Amino acid sequence: MRMYDLIEKKKTGNELSAEEIRWMIASYTNGEIPDYQMSAMTMAICFRGLNEKETLALTLEMRDSGDCLDLSGIEGIKADKHSTGGVGDKTSLALAPIIAALGIPMAKMSGRGLGHTGGTIDKLECFPGFTTSLGREEFIRNVNTIKIAIAGQTANLAPADKKLYALRDVTATVDQKSLIASSIMSKKLASGSDLIVLDVKTGSGAFMKERKEAEALAEEMVRIGTGAGRKTAAVITDMDQPLGNAVGNSLEVIEAIDALSGKGPADFMEVVYALGSKILTLAGAAENEADARQKMEECIALGAAKQKLAELVAAQGGDASYVFDTDRFERAAIRTEVCAPQDGYVQGIEAKEIGTACMMLGGGRRTKEDAIDPAVGIYLLKKKGDFVKKGEPAAIVYANDPKKGDAAVRQVLNAYRFGVKKPDPVPMIKAVIDGVAKSGAPQRIGL
Amino acid sequence: MRMYDLIEKKKTGNELSAEEIRWMIASYTNGEIPDYQMSAMTMAICFRGLNEKETLALTLEMRDSGDCLDLSGIEGIKADKHSTGGVGDKTSLALAPIIAALGIPMAKMSGRGLGHTGGTIDKLECFPGFTTSLGREEFIRNVNTIKIAIAGQTANLAPADKKLYALRDVTATVDQKSLIASSIMSKKLASGSDLIVLDVKTGSGAFMKERKEAEALAEEMVRIGTGAGRKTAAVITDMDQPLGNAVGNSLEVIEAIDALSGKGPADFMEVVYALGSKILTLAGAAENEADARQKMEECIALGAAKQKLAELVAAQGGDASYVFDTDRFERAAIRTEVCAPQDGYVQGIEAKEIGTACMMLGGGRRTKEDAIDPAVGIYLLKKKGDFVKKGEPAAIVYANDPKKGDAAVRQVLNAYRFGVKKPDPVPMIKAVIDGVAKSGAPQRIGL
Repeated sequence: MRMYDLIEKKKTGNELSAEEIRWMIASYTNGEIPDYQMSAMTMAICFRGLNEKETLALTLEMRDSGDCLDLSGIEGIKADKHSTGGVGDKTSLALAPIIAALGIPMAKMSGRGLGHTGGTIDKLECFPGFTTSLGREEFIRNVNTIKIAIAGQTANLAPADKKLYALRDVTATVDQKSLIASSIMSKKLASGSDLIVLDVKTGSGAFMKERKEAEALAEEMVRIGTGAGRKTAAVITDMDQPLGNAVGNSLEVIEAIDALSGKGPADFMEVVYALGSKILTLAGAAENEADARQKMEECIALGAAKQKLAELVAAQGGDASYVFDTDRFERAAIRTEVCAPQDGYVQGIEAKEIGTACMMLGGGRRTKEDAIDPAVGIYLLKKKGDFVKKGEPAAIVYANDPKKGDAAVRQVLNAYRFGVKKPDPVPMIKAVIDGVAKSGAPQRIGL
Repeated sequence: MRMYDLIEKKKTGNELSAEEIRWMIASYTNGEIPDYQMSAMTMAICFRGLNEKETLALTLEMRDSGDCLDLSGIEGIKADKHSTGGVGDKTSLALAPIIAALGIPMAKMSGRGLGHTGGTIDKLECFPGFTTSLGREEFIRNVNTIKIAIAGQTANLAPADKKLYALRDVTATVDQKSLIASSIMSKKLASGSDLIVLDVKTGSGAFMKERKEAEALAEEMVRIGTGAGRKTAAVITDMDQPLGNAVGNSLEVIEAIDALSGKGPADFMEVVYALGSKILTLAGAAENEADARQKMEECIALGAAKQKLAELVAAQGGDASYVFDTDRFERAAIRTEVCAPQDGYVQGIEAKEIGTACMMLGGGRRTKEDAIDPAVGIYLLKKKGDFVKKGEPAAIVYANDPKKGDAAVRQVLNAYRFGVKKPDPVPMIKAVIDGVAKSGAPQRIGL
């Protein structure tokens, strides 16, 4: 087989066989195919696409390029959740304890964040002592005993994807649907869970700005998951403005704990319940969405979900007392109100601008080497549709550096749009995409 | 400037500025831009194309990446000719002496061939002692004294093109019109002539199989040439069957000499006259095509063109006596007739198959390191439209190795198609594309 011929084949719009994709990924990973041929291929894929069979073959080969976690030592249907990322997205922190408290094993591998805030792991590290460096046995033991463990991704998880992603990142070939889907799913499949629920964000603050693009990506991922024999579903959720009110690591952890205390922001709870319903119904732990939602609400009301978070924190070496006293979390000392320049309704909040403001404050990483300041961030007092009087605070900026704080205040103010007319409410859940494991044909249910 | 941004720009269908193209080519040539980014760019160009301005900027930057020959020391309008290549194409060997004999300086740089036969330089080396390694001063002196010199390309001619072509060659990005045009024209422009006539072949044996593709490429090259201030024109000529009767280095040289003796094959002479007319009219040495053709015919009839070839050969160290006694050229000893399997008219001769047969005999190079056997080849006794009786020879294979000879005989036979109906004659000249130096807008004249 020659890479030249495969590039030519894809360039002229033909299908690559599973055998060809296997050979290509194996040869690229071991260095036999040079970067300059692979980047020509990924660019050709940007124009020609990959069909369902090709995408599945690519995903499976990348999955198998490194370690695949064997979770057979854990009883029950192991669930995992993935988000395509957005501003203020602390969903896993609330969702995972709820699901675990309801008896479904959450064996979750998470990444660190690059961008506006840290990832789930960075946020969990706001609990003093918390570690995500678990050995495989400890990971499995924790899930078996308390139904939940959240670990960092092992170094050898889907190395083919790591190498290919690094190349795509410098050759402007990141934004191709099948390549995105296979990259995400290769890692999810290698993580070994039986059930995968995907939160695909759409809107100005999401990677997929257009709802149609988000749905297409979700369908592609669901198709891969079901094609690989996993129960898979996706929920398309809004990311036109930040999710919830808190943006920044400690602030988001506090908001997640509030959610488990029954005091979560409405938009955030919508997303938590939608994803949770999918997990519970797919796992057979709820009969339908209404049943699932009721179970989750009861679980929160009983304090079981919050208790589960405390167990998770304690099991991974963290100080669980923070769960019950959120004032203990460090919050930056310089707090500046961002005041409305006019009377009016909030027409929208540019999520990307808020995310950038948080990163500039030190709450996110520009490069892998950057340290994260967990105490900084932005708290949004007013969101889309809220009325605010001139001079009234719309948000609070938490900074540890006065200059950075001033810049963030200006940026947050720019992110807000005010107007006289009350805007229509935003539906948080745009669509649900269900995978049927056998046929592999995803069904889209518009909401 | 970042290469990433330029890739993204082209990928999304936007125009690259002349400044961006200059920076890109300079940075790629000096190694600052890695191959993997440039191959993503060339693949994006395959899908998005380059417009007129981009193509000209690319060509000029590649031209200026190395030495540009200064021919100002030569009096008159210096002419050059380029062919996109085909089987049996010995046009330069006959055309250059005719033009020089008519007083137009031919200062020609040629390449070696890769493929079915050698290039012009390889063919000229059939004259014992002939060298194309001329110093710059010798080259200019020769053109000033005898109006003709043919040299090999200097090592530092358009090095950016050399590097880019090598990359395109291994990433399946060779066949893009603007990239082909800029590659050819960067070298032609660096060669310093005032007037460039292009022979763009079309048909089954040509790089551009379809006439429309050939015309588009020709228009692109003429646009570049005129854009760069050179008198430029192109002639689209037939390459559905091999040109003339001889294929193979010595055989082709003999046929070219025959042409200068007034005994050239009709199809070959058509191409020589069409290209020559363009050069002579553009140079102001003929009033129109008819006038040009008459001058060329007279020049041949007087023996002046043949005499000019002898002067060229002698001036570059070759044995000029071969020009007047072509029996001296070495021809392979094993000669096998390829006989018609049936009565009928030749319907066509697959040029590519004949070319491959010649290469297999040793007449062409598979890799740059291969040596060429000048004595082997194929002589086509019958061409399209000729009648042949069953058992009558249609071609003769000249081989130095009996096994290779047998294989070539089979291949040549396969290349011929016979049938009962006399096919329509093939017009050799499909179109002429004239450049108007000032406006830069090529005019297509269908024939």
